[in-house]
Amino acid sequence: MNKIGVLGGMGPAATADFLTKLIQLTPATCDQEHLPVVVANLPHVPDRSRAILGLGANPLPAMCASIDLLVNAGCGVIAVPCNTSHHWHSDFAKYSPVPVLHIAEACVLAVGPAQTTAILGTRGCLQSGFYQRIISENGGFCQVPDTQTVQPVVDATIAAVKGGDLARGARYLEHVLRTLSSNGVNAVVLACTELPLAALGCDPVAHAGMTLVDSTLELARASVRYGLDRGWNKAA
Amino acid sequence: MNKIGVLGGMGPAATADFLTKLIQLTPATCDQEHLPVVVANLPHVPDRSRAILGLGANPLPAMCASIDLLVNAGCGVIAVPCNTSHHWHSDFAKYSPVPVLHIAEACVLAVGPAQTTAILGTRGCLQSGFYQRIISENGGFCQVPDTQTVQPVVDATIAAVKGGDLARGARYLEHVLRTLSSNGVNAVVLACTELPLAALGCDPVAHAGMTLVDSTLELARASVRYGLDRGWNKAA
Repeated sequence: MNKIGVLGGMGPAATADFLTKLIQLTPATCDQEHLPVVVANLPHVPDRSRAILGLGANPLPAMCASIDLLVNAGCGVIAVPCNTSHHWHSDFAKYSPVPVLHIAEACVLAVGPAQTTAILGTRGCLQSGFYQRIISENGGFCQVPDTQTVQPVVDATIAAVKGGDLARGARYLEHVLRTLSSNGVNAVVLACTELPLAALGCDPVAHAGMTLVDSTLELARASVRYGLDRGWNKAA
Repeated sequence: MNKIGVLGGMGPAATADFLTKLIQLTPATCDQEHLPVVVANLPHVPDRSRAILGLGANPLPAMCASIDLLVNAGCGVIAVPCNTSHHWHSDFAKYSPVPVLHIAEACVLAVGPAQTTAILGTRGCLQSGFYQRIISENGGFCQVPDTQTVQPVVDATIAAVKGGDLARGARYLEHVLRTLSSNGVNAVVLACTELPLAALGCDPVAHAGMTLVDSTLELARASVRYGLDRGWNKAA
């Protein structure tokens, strides 16, 4: 049970981005100093946002099947590089015999002393409210995008990345960041794992003076820390 | 058995690059249209090149353990994004109850009608000779780098990528490509999965007029084709 398990596929590009960041964050000079990781990139999980909004099937059984796969493969901790799915975190953490990290708890550590933090995510993630709860429990003040004017552009950013069009996603996200900046926001959590991929193409001027928190990166950081603390980078 | 299995960790960055390419090559507009993939990124496999050169432990038992993990997880085909490990392809293909794709066979399809093809890889991969055999069986003519002058730079490129220094790797690879170009080479197989990562940073002028074959990309292409032909992108 010395492997990091990745419950992925939600979406696949975000899963690959998570694995890349996990490997980049691991201090290693050769293969054998890296952490063992098993990735279940199983994309046929029902849409998480639609389920929270009461529009689609429950994704929990498919997520539990991935947990079974990862635990059977010897994983001792599980990371889920999908923010929206954390609506069910208490359910799958109860189901899993091994710990499941929480992406929002990983992000809160990186927000810092900002006074106004905007959460960018799917409508389901924002309606679930776990980010708002965790940030306010940590003494921060939360802002969510206006559902009529800004959220449609966030939705379009996420859809563009899931469809493989990163350049279009970057243009949309840049528009969102400029709007938030003019609203006095000083930290933005990219609380959907597709958004950091769009952020790569954004003009840095669009978010000058704001802290951008990459939820994929922060979850990868927490995962690497968990594995290194237990010496999983050393061969058994 | 409708999942693609990735026997990874050799090295980890190449494994993440392979997963990224596999996902990018899959025609999909939403998560649920992607292919199911399980990645065993288990980096504690003994060094493949050292084993071929008689300097280190046999990596085959560790690779067979990864095959067990992938088959138990429901994989119906296995891809190994590590060229050197294909020295043992006939052994692990015999061990595996499901087909194991061959990276060199995937690359040969992309070499095209070039007359002089250089193979860049680890010393173990070149000593093993499977690339030279497969390319000559397909009517091509093979060139391998001079072991005294060019191969040390190839070795340094691979080590730089494994250590996370892509910029240094790119500088070394650029030097190798310029040398090959002046030797009349018109196709280069990047026959170590670390090399395409270094190639990203190379000046395109260094390989103008030469076909660069990315072994990671060609194996990903073969994997996607295998999964799509069998409808694995459709939910069960």
